[in-house]
Amino acid sequence: MSEITFRTATRDDLHAIVALLSDDELAENREKQVGGDSVGEEYTKAFDAMEGEHYNHMLLAESDGRIVGALQLVFVPGLSRRGAKRAIVESVRVVSDARGQNVGTALMKEAIRRAREGGCSLLQLTCDNRRSRAHLFYRRLGFTQSHFGFKKEL
Amino acid sequence: MSEITFRTATRDDLHAIVALLSDDELAENREKQVGGDSVGEEYTKAFDAMEGEHYNHMLLAESDGRIVGALQLVFVPGLSRRGAKRAIVESVRVVSDARGQNVGTALMKEAIRRAREGGCSLLQLTCDNRRSRAHLFYRRLGFTQSHFGFKKEL
Repeated sequence: MSEITFRTATRDDLHAIVALLSDDELAENREKQVGGDSVGEEYTKAFDAMEGEHYNHMLLAESDGRIVGALQLVFVPGLSRRGAKRAIVESVRVVSDARGQNVGTALMKEAIRRAREGGCSLLQLTCDNRRSRAHLFYRRLGFTQSHFGFKKEL
Repeated sequence: MSEITFRTATRDDLHAIVALLSDDELAENREKQVGGDSVGEEYTKAFDAMEGEHYNHMLLAESDGRIVGALQLVFVPGLSRRGAKRAIVESVRVVSDARGQNVGTALMKEAIRRAREGGCSLLQLTCDNRRSRAHLFYRRLGFTQSHFGFKKEL
């Protein structure tokens, strides 16, 4: 693979991002399958809401002008841990034909770099219990599997 | 215990909140022990940063005019799950002499109510692997222990 570069997503990337979000065996039924040009109002509204936040964006990995990976990076100020700002990562995806080529590692390292640069003292994420290869991936990146993640649909 | 009421924290609550954050066997060494009137600049700066966000606050439980519990409630818009807005809960605490009296349950139910009212379709949190009673507590509240939580100090 050619060199991987990173950038913050813009509205023009929305179609590619939604396609990437559903390119995942656990998430495909949760996302809309996009055809044609339109991604649907639910995604454009969500993108606008993210744009209105201080630090909440999709970080994209590109290679040869093509998006090969993405993750959501959010900074959340809080009181605990002596007023620590946390970085939260959600929705990590690598396009299926680029897996096993360290795109995910490069993308996570860029997220870590941006989080440090933004003054975060902690980076946290949750990972589905069934993604055992991903658990190893995060441990290799220096994450501690110290917590359980609980979710409740509202 | 008298009736429990709920409200969003103000700057005047900061001293009580910091004392509550450190009233916990796993967290006490992570927080500053507050004496006197001042809580320290790290907490006041973090409080101001939270105030500047769209929806990021400490939710307080009070009984007889005293703070008996607190949690941080944050709403995070995102693209995945068809543009779902997530509510994230952090730093759940009940004051030590009020434990076992359903303060935590009432506080979490209020967080769930506020998250639904705010248009969130998912509420998520992580809980230290060692807090086995808390795991049961969240499952009883209808949470699914479907994920592992990974953290990395930066």
